[in-house]
Formats: sequence, structure tokens, C-alpha cells
Amino acid sequence: MKAAVYHGPRDIRVETVPDPALQRPTDAVVRVVNAAICGSDLWPYRGIATNWTAGSRIGHEFIGVVEEAGADLRTFKRGDIVAAPFSYSDNTCDYCHAGIYTSCRHGGFWGGADEDGGQGQFVRVPFADGTLRPIPAAVAHDEKKRASALTLTDVMSTGHHGCVRAGVKAGSSVAVIGDGAVGLCAIISAHRSNAARIFALGHHAARLELARAFGATDIVDSKDPDAAQKIIDATDGGVACVVEAVGSQATMDLGVSIVRPGGTLAYVGVPYGVSTFNARKLFSDNISIAGALAPTRAYIDELMTDVVLGKIDPGAVLTLRLPLEGTPDGYKAMDDRSTIKVLLEISAV
Amino acid sequence: MKAAVYHGPRDIRVETVPDPALQRPTDAVVRVVNAAICGSDLWPYRGIATNWTAGSRIGHEFIGVVEEAGADLRTFKRGDIVAAPFSYSDNTCDYCHAGIYTSCRHGGFWGGADEDGGQGQFVRVPFADGTLRPIPAAVAHDEKKRASALTLTDVMSTGHHGCVRAGVKAGSSVAVIGDGAVGLCAIISAHRSNAARIFALGHHAARLELARAFGATDIVDSKDPDAAQKIIDATDGGVACVVEAVGSQATMDLGVSIVRPGGTLAYVGVPYGVSTFNARKLFSDNISIAGALAPTRAYIDELMTDVVLGKIDPGAVLTLRLPLEGTPDGYKAMDDRSTIKVLLEISAV
Repeated sequence: MKAAVYHGPRDIRVETVPDPALQRPTDAVVRVVNAAICGSDLWPYRGIATNWTAGSRIGHEFIGVVEEAGADLRTFKRGDIVAAPFSYSDNTCDYCHAGIYTSCRHGGFWGGADEDGGQGQFVRVPFADGTLRPIPAAVAHDEKKRASALTLTDVMSTGHHGCVRAGVKAGSSVAVIGDGAVGLCAIISAHRSNAARIFALGHHAARLELARAFGATDIVDSKDPDAAQKIIDATDGGVACVVEAVGSQATMDLGVSIVRPGGTLAYVGVPYGVSTFNARKLFSDNISIAGALAPTRAYIDELMTDVVLGKIDPGAVLTLRLPLEGTPDGYKAMDDRSTIKVLLEISAV
Repeated sequence: MKAAVYHGPRDIRVETVPDPALQRPTDAVVRVVNAAICGSDLWPYRGIATNWTAGSRIGHEFIGVVEEAGADLRTFKRGDIVAAPFSYSDNTCDYCHAGIYTSCRHGGFWGGADEDGGQGQFVRVPFADGTLRPIPAAVAHDEKKRASALTLTDVMSTGHHGCVRAGVKAGSSVAVIGDGAVGLCAIISAHRSNAARIFALGHHAARLELARAFGATDIVDSKDPDAAQKIIDATDGGVACVVEAVGSQATMDLGVSIVRPGGTLAYVGVPYGVSTFNARKLFSDNISIAGALAPTRAYIDELMTDVVLGKIDPGAVLTLRLPLEGTPDGYKAMDDRSTIKVLLEISAV
């Protein structure tokens, strides 16, 4: 089969790799219909994540059709249309039972040296019953809704997890830092929770326009040196909830500076070079910092219902469609920020 | 009147200072019956907190009797026996209504250049209706229970706040770092919440014995280089809740290392020199860090009920009784750790 392979910084190639096969009776092999390129795929692409070896498989956001089902599967069978969270999990361990599927004692992540990546024609899915979630036919056969379903595997569920971990609820004041796909999806989540005020911090006009369409009530230029003070003034002390969707020291510091006493900052971006925090401010103001790698499996069903009903449209963050062969171009387009996020059209439903 | 005055590192004197008087109709003047010396008083005493000026008043834990009541008071009158949280608050602002009295928009703290300190004969209490809590006669006239009531002004309520912020509930696994008064009180709180397993980390035998009496199920020598691994092994991955009651970088790092995925570390010790955190571990394991300056006013009534019923005995952390004149000796005894915490006997109930 064909799949994207990482060969080094700015060197992603689509190559022939071994076809996956069932290895254990709890496996499934999924034929990928759509995959996406994630902002976090850019860390190795840009050479910032240095733990990637040439030949690694890449991609962790995909939806598809069960091609082969292991003998022990009870939930899924050949032909089922499924969404795969960005991590696999057995759904039997204590961490899974606590809803933290990303910490599954037997789980793991797509791609790398040991697993198939999502950006390819097929993926062997370990613990398929514990990992996959069904996609309703009405979603699968609607191109726009199918794109939204694809976002539930990562960015939409990740943005939502940020809101969950930041304590967003009806009436909350929320600030979302970052106008990438995850930040935009966090705005959808905050709006869906009836947050009263939603600040979108970013600096790309087109993306901030989408933020407004998704429900942001206030657009703030994150490069404005007075950005923090403006938010503090507008909220008489800061926002209750911050979703930090970048993962840098500067954005974390900006985030902490705008949390009001008793509030929470959740960070959903993989942190690179983040090491310090304002311990005294957190202490004096009873602020929490919540790490938030999203156990997206926990949210797919709930959010899928909103996709079915047309209540949310996170697929709008997928601003460029390419065939699998176009994957390297997709990375390039995301790297130079000429597109928000790429959807790969790999096979028919 | 007589009161303790800070003159510089290791230089606390009991001197004659001006008698306080009502300044606003919402004030009260409280005659202090008992005050305590707090671990955080040692920061200026040891010269680590450098923002203290000579002549500052000190002490923020006291109980007493209302000597004069301002004309606008509706809750308290002359003769009432009261406990004062370590911060004063108007109980009318949005932060007070959210229960974060320490962030009151018009509140403040005892001592310093502007307010009376708790270690003295009288204290002017701003916003007395919003600040003070009543002490039942049955507690006030029982020496042991009165000592426990004194701890509700700070250390017991602070230990409890640590448990609240760390999410301790029935069945939780908890680790408390620090065997000072606050750490010991956190153990009382965890035990009171029916936590299943309570690790006490410290290195003073007598204090750890008290930890055991307060409900700790496991005693761990915090100087053992394998302390963290032992707790991780004993809990198959770490504890759900950590209450960090020291406030140093080393104890914060130790705390984060023993939190299980999905867990929370709350820190109740004023952080000195704490600036870094393991952002990647917090992210990957969905861990939260919660700053936790205790709004003790929020807890006094609830905990007082347990004192009335004899269900908790936090007064046991007050291991040395001295008259007001002995305050300098009390600081010395706490500084050299020959006693856990000092109760000052200032006037009769």
C-alpha cells in the first residue's frame, strides 16, 4: 500500500510500504477514507521534535471502513464506517475506565517505527473494539459532515477537551490562545457550552474571521503588546478559563496573565520549550494549570451527535483537500500557513 | 497595647504600639485571646522574604472577643467570641461570592505597615461582618477545642483547602508533602474525606507519628531517594491527589513525579524559588497544578462543627504554649524545629 513516510525535516514522501495485516484477534485493519495533517505533525516536519527517525510513519487523524476484523471483535465488523481517536486504547484498564484513554496501560499512538500512520491507505488498529467509534451513515455520505467527523479524531475533540479541562460552562468567560485548527475548535466547544464571552487571540485575519463565525465574541490581536491588559480590563480582572492552543512559553505566560482569580488555564498544544510558570501568581490567585492531551475517544460520540444535527461544523477548518500523493504539498501549505488544515482524500466511503 | 513587631531577620520584639480604634462603621476591634505563629511567619524571620520593613506588625492567626463593634455591624456585637481568617474580606464582591475571599476586591492581610498583626493584644478588623466567624461557647471554654478553633484561622483550613483543590474525595489516594502544621492538617482533612490511602512524606519522627495519629496510612521518608518510586509502585502509577505543603522547587518536583495520570497537585505553601514545572508530563498525563492560597473563611464553619463534635483535633499541632512576651522564643523554637507550632496565650476568653 501507499503511505506517507517521514525521512527528515521537510522531507515527507508517499511510498510503498508493507500492507498491514491482523496480528491479534482484537485487531482490525481499516481502509482509510480521509486523513488529515495535524499541527503537531509540523513539529517533526520543522525539525523541532528531534526524536523522529527516518522511515517513521506519520499521521494520526483518520476515518475509514473496517476492511478486516479480528476474531475477537464484538463491536465492529467488516464494512463498518469508523473514526479512530489519535491514540488507541483497550478500554479495559483503570485509566480507560477513568476516561483518560491517552494513558491506557496497553495503548499507544499511530505512526512512528511500530505502528501504521494515519496518512496512508490502511491502518492496523490494535484493540479495535476499545479504540474505534462508529460514524453514522448520514455523516459518512455527506462530504461536509464527513470532514467534521474527521476532526473529531483530534482537533475538535482536543479543543473540546481544552474547554472541559479549563472548566468552561454556561456563562463562562473564555480566552482561546491560538488561531490554528485546535484553537478554532475550542471556540466551537466554548460556544456550544454557552460561554458568555469568548476571546479569540491570534493574528491571521482569515482565521480570526472563522473564529468569529464559530462563536468568538471578541477578537484580539495576540501580537498587540496590550492584548493581555485589554482582556483583563474587558473582564474586570481576567477570564475564568483559558485554552492555550499553541504550546510555547510566550503563549503560556500570556495565558496565565489573563486568568482571573479562581480560574484555570488548560493547554492542549504539545508544549515545546515550556518550562517555567508564575508559581506566585497561581498561588495568590488560586489559579490552576491543566495539562490536556485529549483522550478524544471520550468525546467522539457526543460531538458526533452535534455533527449529525448540523449544530457544529468543525470541518470548516479543513481548508485544503489533496489526494494522498499530495501529502508533501499539504505539509508545505500548513508549514507556510497558507492553509489552516489539510484533508487527504484517500479512498471512497 | 503590646504587640509583636518585626525589626529584621531573627529580630521579633514585643513592644508597646498604638491601641487600635474603630476607623469605619464596618470595623470591629477584637481583643485577642489566642494567636499562633505560622510557618509562613518564618519567611521574613529567616530573611527569605525580603519585602518586610522594620517596624512591621506580624501574625495572622488569631481568635478573640469583640471589644468594640462599628455602628454598621449586623452580625457581630461586643462580647462575641470570634475567629479571624488570615485575610479580611468584605463578603460582597464577586470574588467573595465565588468563595475566593483571599482575592476580595477590598480585602487584605493582617500585619505589615498598615494593619494590626494577630500577635498582639488587639486587632482592628476591617469589614468585620464579612470577615469574622463565630466560635461556639462550647469550643471557646474548652482549652483543647479552642486551640483547634485557632487552627481554623489558617493551618487546618489551609490543609483542607489543599485537599479541596487537589480533588480529594472518598476513596482517593493522597500524598501530603511536608510534615509541618499545614501538612499534618491536610492529613486530617484527607482522613475526614475518607480518602482510601494517605501517604505522609516528611522526615521528623515525632511529626510523622502525629501524621499517623491523624490518619496517614503510609509514612514515607521524604529524604529517601527512592521515595517517589516507592509511592508510584505502591499505587500502581502514582496518587490521584498531592497536597504540597512546603513550597520549594524540590518538593514541587517530587510532588509532580508522584501524581498519576488525571491527578492534581495542589500547593498550599507560599512558593519560594519555585519557577519551573514539567510541562510535558503534565500534558501527557493530564495532570493539573493548582495554586491554593486558602480562603479560610470558606471553611471555618464546616470545620468548626467537627471541632464541636470532637471529630477532629487539629489543635494537636500547637505543641508549645507561650505568653505574648514569649513570642520571640516561639519564633526561635519554630525556626529550629524543636516545636511544630506555637500558641500564644494573650488574654482570657
